[in-house]
Amino acid sequence: MADTIENEHTGHGYIEHKDQVLKRLRRAEGQVRGVQRMVEEDKYCIDILTQVSAATKALEQVALALLDDHLSHCVTAAAAEGGQVATEKLEEVSAAIARLVR
Amino acid sequence: MADTIENEHTGHGYIEHKDQVLKRLRRAEGQVRGVQRMVEEDKYCIDILTQVSAATKALEQVALALLDDHLSHCVTAAAAEGGQVATEKLEEVSAAIARLVR
Amino acid sequence: MADTIENEHTGHGYIEHKDQVLKRLRRAEGQVRGVQRMVEEDKYCIDILTQVSAATKALEQVALALLDDHLSHCVTAAAAEGGQVATEKLEEVSAAIARLVR
Amino acid sequence: MADTIENEHTGHGYIEHKDQVLKRLRRAEGQVRGVQRMVEEDKYCIDILTQVSAATKALEQVALALLDDHLSHCVTAAAAEGGQVATEKLEEVSAAIARLVR
Repeated sequence: MADTIENEHTGHGYIEHKDQVLKRLRRAEGQVRGVQRMVEEDKYCIDILTQVSAATKALEQVALALLDDHLSHCVTAAAAEGGQVATEKLEEVSAAIARLVR
Repeated sequence: MADTIENEHTGHGYIEHKDQVLKRLRRAEGQVRGVQRMVEEDKYCIDILTQVSAATKALEQVALALLDDHLSHCVTAAAAEGGQVATEKLEEVSAAIARLVR
Repeated sequence: MADTIENEHTGHGYIEHKDQVLKRLRRAEGQVRGVQRMVEEDKYCIDILTQVSAATKALEQVALALLDDHLSHCVTAAAAEGGQVATEKLEEVSAAIARLVR
Repeated sequence: MADTIENEHTGHGYIEHKDQVLKRLRRAEGQVRGVQRMVEEDKYCIDILTQVSAATKALEQVALALLDDHLSHCVTAAAAEGGQVATEKLEEVSAAIARLVR
C-alpha cells in the first residue's frame, strides 16, 4: 500500500521535474547559440567566456536535477529490492557522479 | 534477518573503505605540505600548480569514495525505511553532490 | 616591425581557431538538443547524464580554446603596453579563469 | 628602465602574495587533518564531505592565486620578450589552466 502511494508521488514528481529540466535545456541551447553568434561577430573574448560559463552552469543544474530524480526513484527502488540489482545501480550512479565531478 | 546480514556486510565494507580513505587523506596531507615547501623555496609556479592539482584530485577521490559509502549504506537504509527520513537523506546527499560538482 | 609580423600571425591563428570553436559549439548545441529529446522520450537517467556530461565537456573545451586565444592575443598585447591597461586585463582574465574553475 | 620599476613592483607583490598563499595552505593542511580525524572517529559522512569540500575550495583558491601571480609576472615578462619563449610560456599556462578546470 505504502508502495503504491510512493509510486504515485514519484510519477507526479517526475513529470513536474521534466518540464523544469526541459525549460532549462532550452535555455542552455539558446545560450550555446548565443555563444556561436558572439564568436561569429568577433565579440570580446571575456564576454563570450561569461556566456559559455552560464551555459555550462545551466547544464550542471540539469545534471543535478536529473541525478536527484534518479536517486529518489531508480536508486531508491533498487535499494528496496536489494541484491545484485541494488549493487549495480549504486555502482552506476557513483560512476555518473564521478563523471560530473571531474 | 536479511537486514542483519545486510548490516554486517555494510559494517565490514565500511572498515575496508576507511583504511583506503585514510591512506588517501594522508597522501593528500603530504601533498599539501609539499606545496608549502615549494612556495617557501620559490619553486616554479607551474610546478607548484601541478602539485596543487594533484592534491585537489586526491581530495576529490576521497569525496567520491565517502559518497559511495554514504549512498550504499545510509541512503540505502533510509530509502528502505521510506517516509520523511528517506526524503531528508536524499535531499541531504543531493546538496552534498551539488557542493562537489560546483 | 616585429609587432606587425606578430599581429599578422595573430590574425591568422585567430581565424583558424574560430572555425574550430564554431564547429565545437555546433556539436555542443546538437548534444544539448539530443539531451532534450532523451528527456522527452523518458530515456534512462544515466544515459541522459552521460550525454549532459559530454555537452559540458564540449563547452569546457570551447572555453579553454577561447581563453588560449585571449591570453596569446589580448593579454599579451596589453602586457606589452604595460601600465593600468595591463593590470586591468590581467584582473579580467583572472576573474574569467576563476569562473571556469568553480 | 621601465623594466626595473616593473620588476620591483613585481617583487613586492610576489612576497605579499606568498604569505597569503602559505597561510591558505596551512589552513588547507589543517582541514585535511581534520577530515582524517573525522574519518577515524566515524563522524557522519555528510559532515566529512562538507569538510572535504572546504579543503578542496581552499586549494582551488591557492591555485587561482598562484596562477594570478604567474600570469602577471612570468607570462607578462615572457610576452614582452616575444618569440619562442612567449609561445612556450603561453602553452604551459594554458595546460595548467586546463588541469585546473577539469
